[in-house]
Amino acid sequence: MEVQTAALAGKVTINTRNVKAIGTESEKKPLGKMSIPRREVLPNDVEMEILFCGICHSDLHQIKNDFGGTMFPIVPGHEIVGRVTRVGNMVTKFKVGDLAAVGCIVDSCGKCEYCKDDIQQFCDEGVTYSFNSLDKHLGVATYGGFSESIVTNEDYVLHMPEKLDLAGAAPLLCAGITVYSPLKHWKAGPGKKVGILGIGGLGHLAIKIAKAMGAHVVVFTTSASKVEDAKRLGADEAVLSTDADQMQKYARSLHFILDTVSAKHDVNTYLNLLRHDGSVVLVGLPPQPLEIGAFSVVVGRRSFSGSNIGGIAETQEMLDFCAKHNITAEIELINPDQVNEAFVRLEKGDVKYRFVIDMSPLKK
Amino acid sequence: MEVQTAALAGKVTINTRNVKAIGTESEKKPLGKMSIPRREVLPNDVEMEILFCGICHSDLHQIKNDFGGTMFPIVPGHEIVGRVTRVGNMVTKFKVGDLAAVGCIVDSCGKCEYCKDDIQQFCDEGVTYSFNSLDKHLGVATYGGFSESIVTNEDYVLHMPEKLDLAGAAPLLCAGITVYSPLKHWKAGPGKKVGILGIGGLGHLAIKIAKAMGAHVVVFTTSASKVEDAKRLGADEAVLSTDADQMQKYARSLHFILDTVSAKHDVNTYLNLLRHDGSVVLVGLPPQPLEIGAFSVVVGRRSFSGSNIGGIAETQEMLDFCAKHNITAEIELINPDQVNEAFVRLEKGDVKYRFVIDMSPLKK
Repeated sequence: MEVQTAALAGKVTINTRNVKAIGTESEKKPLGKMSIPRREVLPNDVEMEILFCGICHSDLHQIKNDFGGTMFPIVPGHEIVGRVTRVGNMVTKFKVGDLAAVGCIVDSCGKCEYCKDDIQQFCDEGVTYSFNSLDKHLGVATYGGFSESIVTNEDYVLHMPEKLDLAGAAPLLCAGITVYSPLKHWKAGPGKKVGILGIGGLGHLAIKIAKAMGAHVVVFTTSASKVEDAKRLGADEAVLSTDADQMQKYARSLHFILDTVSAKHDVNTYLNLLRHDGSVVLVGLPPQPLEIGAFSVVVGRRSFSGSNIGGIAETQEMLDFCAKHNITAEIELINPDQVNEAFVRLEKGDVKYRFVIDMSPLKK
Repeated sequence: MEVQTAALAGKVTINTRNVKAIGTESEKKPLGKMSIPRREVLPNDVEMEILFCGICHSDLHQIKNDFGGTMFPIVPGHEIVGRVTRVGNMVTKFKVGDLAAVGCIVDSCGKCEYCKDDIQQFCDEGVTYSFNSLDKHLGVATYGGFSESIVTNEDYVLHMPEKLDLAGAAPLLCAGITVYSPLKHWKAGPGKKVGILGIGGLGHLAIKIAKAMGAHVVVFTTSASKVEDAKRLGADEAVLSTDADQMQKYARSLHFILDTVSAKHDVNTYLNLLRHDGSVVLVGLPPQPLEIGAFSVVVGRRSFSGSNIGGIAETQEMLDFCAKHNITAEIELINPDQVNEAFVRLEKGDVKYRFVIDMSPLKK
């Protein structure tokens, strides 16, 4: 297929070919097999065969059109691990056969102060996400990793360390960087007491990463059954947040709390566990606003902050850090024909702790 | 009068004498003249004749028992300027005749890491405030600056620079340090675009101080009549926050916003004006919680923070800074018998920009 697109000046012709994918044409329909165009490699492009793709809560939000603005058809997936099958003639960072990965960002302006500083997540023009963004080359929506292959500019492709389990490593591309970036930014490390709020896809990786950074890790969970699990994952302490007496013991004791909860919850309770100048940092996306009392922040000069993924350089740094400390996600590996069931279970929080799709059956 | 108090080990006898003050015995009664005990100077104490005392919104909250827990009778006032009339035999920092000042804090544990670091506002045991705190010496409530004199440990007394107008300088002791401390902590200065939200007792001083620090100051107000006033006070730009078109021009442009608003308001609007890593810092005390949407903080790694006064050393630094830059509050000077009328007007926001009581008539 040839595509002429106004998205590129001068109507450049881009050749595409169709590949298999899993997606849907409406928030009312289940996901199913479909055919999507991928561009032929341009001079700076890397084509990779997708081996594994994680399922993230954002995938669920977007296929259900929870935030509005989903462009259908949609092919979700931004935790993509694969092997390079073709490279453009200007590519210098990858060769055919390399392990590689693609996360949430597949393009950005490249010219603003943020892109130049390798913090593309703040790009002045807004980044192009792996799916449900406008593809600058084809003028249609970008299609994600629930697919047999993907073509990406090499500047947005990561090197996947050989030593990591590839299926377990897939969730690092979104969940991993989403927790690594704030833990690093707010200086989790030796001498710091770090709280982790919630033990799910994000929280369980945050426990492992914060511990590997050298912090003292205190996990807060509403679920008694997860207390032991938190310790198995490496937490120094695990607190049942419904137990007011236990909670009181932690008042004014934590330097930093990573809040991975995606539903409405009382942030004030956790702000009050912070030492002075501490921060509760939200990485979940509760759909309703959260209520904060003035005294929760005014007393002790505390902050309620947020964080969203990380730049390409930091994502590579995170992958290398995880390889060094042998950190991967705890996953349930599924086949492509199990994705609808997986989304139903994900919505109920019934997964320990991340679904990853083995993409190989899709090629048959 | 002699007071034997259990608050000091061994039931030490402390001599007191009665002085005139303005206070009330109930939130339902107006303020009026009363007699309160002040201790005779202990070896490290400074006694000062009070010349001027500012009226702060906290005074209003406390006499109305808005937060609960007010100990009646109450004598408010924590923006206290005066002249030293007596010193204890161990006092080294002050002599009789010196100009002096007392702000919000009159005591703290002196032993915790925060007190040792001169950031007493974070004291592990909680500070003793100038009024409505438990007085460790007398075992009753502390009484504030609506009074003819006050006795304070010299470590909590400030040197008042001679060159400042004393009545206009009184509000620096609370309003001044409340805005100076966060402006300094969040590094307002050359190259920084600083937003000031609200032009009242706090906001008008924030404009002057941020400007003197070298920042580019943008004021946001809901009141068209205050736009020109903001510029007269030194703002580089003043924006009518009810004008959506004007507001849109400031999206993602500010490094820091000081939020001085004491009523419920939409913080998300202002979070969205921040550059990445920017903070909206609340110094007002809205009684209702504020609602914050996840995207308001997650996008751009933004923060909603708070700040509360400052330590003794920083308060002195602020006074010296204001003396250097000739900064005082714009005030309406009133007599002690006008305080009830002043509180009524303060509640309506009808003051430009701070009431200060001339205490000399009280002595007659």
